[in-house]
Amino acid sequence: MIIKGFSASAVPAGIKYSGRLDLGLICSATPAVTAGVFTKNLVKAAPVVLDMERLRQGRAQAILVNSGCANACTGEQGMEAAKSTSRLVALALGIPEEMVQVASTGVIGVQLNVAAFESAMDSLVGGLAPENLGKVAEAIMTTDTFVKTATRTITLCGKEVNFMGMAKGSGMIMPNMATMLAFIVTDAQIGFPELNKCLKTSVARTFNRITVDGDTSTNDMVLVMANGAAGNKWIDDEIPEAQQLFQDTLEDMLKDLALQIVGDGEGATKCITIRVCGAKEAGEAEQMARTVANSNLVKTAFFGEDANWGRIIAAMGRCGVRFHPEHVDISFGDITIVKNGIGQGAAVEEEAAKVLREKNITVKIDLKDGNACEEIYTCDFSVDYVKINADYRT
Amino acid sequence: MIIKGFSASAVPAGIKYSGRLDLGLICSATPAVTAGVFTKNLVKAAPVVLDMERLRQGRAQAILVNSGCANACTGEQGMEAAKSTSRLVALALGIPEEMVQVASTGVIGVQLNVAAFESAMDSLVGGLAPENLGKVAEAIMTTDTFVKTATRTITLCGKEVNFMGMAKGSGMIMPNMATMLAFIVTDAQIGFPELNKCLKTSVARTFNRITVDGDTSTNDMVLVMANGAAGNKWIDDEIPEAQQLFQDTLEDMLKDLALQIVGDGEGATKCITIRVCGAKEAGEAEQMARTVANSNLVKTAFFGEDANWGRIIAAMGRCGVRFHPEHVDISFGDITIVKNGIGQGAAVEEEAAKVLREKNITVKIDLKDGNACEEIYTCDFSVDYVKINADYRT
Repeated sequence: MIIKGFSASAVPAGIKYSGRLDLGLICSATPAVTAGVFTKNLVKAAPVVLDMERLRQGRAQAILVNSGCANACTGEQGMEAAKSTSRLVALALGIPEEMVQVASTGVIGVQLNVAAFESAMDSLVGGLAPENLGKVAEAIMTTDTFVKTATRTITLCGKEVNFMGMAKGSGMIMPNMATMLAFIVTDAQIGFPELNKCLKTSVARTFNRITVDGDTSTNDMVLVMANGAAGNKWIDDEIPEAQQLFQDTLEDMLKDLALQIVGDGEGATKCITIRVCGAKEAGEAEQMARTVANSNLVKTAFFGEDANWGRIIAAMGRCGVRFHPEHVDISFGDITIVKNGIGQGAAVEEEAAKVLREKNITVKIDLKDGNACEEIYTCDFSVDYVKINADYRT
Repeated sequence: MIIKGFSASAVPAGIKYSGRLDLGLICSATPAVTAGVFTKNLVKAAPVVLDMERLRQGRAQAILVNSGCANACTGEQGMEAAKSTSRLVALALGIPEEMVQVASTGVIGVQLNVAAFESAMDSLVGGLAPENLGKVAEAIMTTDTFVKTATRTITLCGKEVNFMGMAKGSGMIMPNMATMLAFIVTDAQIGFPELNKCLKTSVARTFNRITVDGDTSTNDMVLVMANGAAGNKWIDDEIPEAQQLFQDTLEDMLKDLALQIVGDGEGATKCITIRVCGAKEAGEAEQMARTVANSNLVKTAFFGEDANWGRIIAAMGRCGVRFHPEHVDISFGDITIVKNGIGQGAAVEEEAAKVLREKNITVKIDLKDGNACEEIYTCDFSVDYVKINADYRT
């Protein structure tokens, strides 16, 4: 999909591997209103620190992104490298350095090879074209097994508005305010406060609800650029219905990308939704769902297609939420395998095992203590997860 | 080792598997001062609930333990079953029912087969002998690959005092006040308040410092029986040096058993000590060490013998403790791989990789923010962990 006023390019720069796309550039023809959310990990990669500082102005015109090196734990040298690469882009495009956002993903603790960026810059900028956004989505992959993109089209105040989003992520995934990397570009005309609010609301309900392995990355970020090229009336509080439509569209798109990340979780064979209902408070429902979604014993049982609900209730019991074990119902799909805290026997477990053979599984936990309900999205835990992560750097 | 006044027995009762020891009994000739610590999981198995109630009296004379069935999430029927089995023992031994402690380990959500206990009771009680404590250690194994026992002998106020301890546990191990199952018998003469205090102090520093997979069981318990048969002077606050020796011996023994559990962690190939030093507070040091010890990415890197310190620092960054990433040193054994937050390069990583090929590895993290230092003990995370837990019930 083409988004008015945006162009993109990606090239193989040899940052880590040779012969594969690993350097991408997204540009807006004009300065775009830009909002971002970033990792809450105390250890932040150089590009995260730099982008957070630059985004105080709420504007950006380009995103330069590389895979193969996270530029995290690289000290002053790493920060200088991040700035140098943004300067290369600024010079080539004739824009201020501060209008360039940078993003990196890959191994922690290795210095960025700035020379590789320099050598690649001419062909990178030369390749800029509206139809190349998908190539950037390819360039940001690391252990990802498929390209993750989403597009949406809506009508805002009579104007067609388009969105294109991309994400990468497969391991070290339990985002806290953001996920590995996700970039969304839209030609919508929207102010910074509104865009920022829509992004934060959407991320809380989407990327911050997924977990692959409980590990939060040092490089997580989500950026949204809105360049206004669609020419719609400015979206603000005066037209709440348009703002709501924008919010809904963005959230729907981020959820799409977030679920793609879970579906491509390292070694994953299944997508699992853990839904906790009947909780006293939303925060408690989320805490319980997250504990179950991060339990290795629960996740390996899903890999084994074993309806082992004992592991679910054991994880619930250690999550810190007070509840009544003797009230709990647990269902796999439509099959209620536990009623009032008691297993329903072998015949029901066999029915439930059929549900577990599917690719998408919903586990519903009903506490019957209140009305709050929350979901966390995860994947199963396979032999391949261990193989991928024992061998990642070799 | 024989502990004066104690006898034990174990038989194959066919509770889950046939032809292997799965039912054990430990008896004291006289009522023994007995202290216990139990799982903090909100979901507690029937034997845990029953034992906690009975231990209010601080005395017990027998422990009946089975593997193959956890008797957890089994409702009223499960509680009745726990009581029935304790009654069988009480009748056979001619002691009050309340003097019998029961313990179960195995699959959650399956009712206890009381008939199997009934059929086995005669041969179980008939087999009681002082030299059979080791057979009980064998009977409590589930996915354990070796028997875990420890013995100690000390002189207390001129009398020889003996201890024998046993433990089981391999998965669902991140004890919170206790571990899966551990039983210690001693012929020491000690009052309940002193025994209880020694046990709680020791468990906090040993079993509560290990983690295999971050999952806390519904059945965790540690019981210590002291029957006084050694005839030493009563240990109390009037002889602090004797109480300290008792405490040190118990703690040393529990640490021995705890490390045996980590060394037999499901699929484990290595024992890893995560030591965080230079923290502002002990609680923060423990929290950071525990987060690193539970990171799947850290644990799979150890399995892969990859000196991937980036995963360690990423886990530190998400643990909730404030520190200065630019001050951090990280060592594997004697090799300092990170100084002041920066990796020391490929040559040092190669030296560190040699350390990782060993079976016992210590990771030292120095925050340089204070003087607190704490350790957590864990194991690596292998392909076999997933295989064991995907297939556990089949």
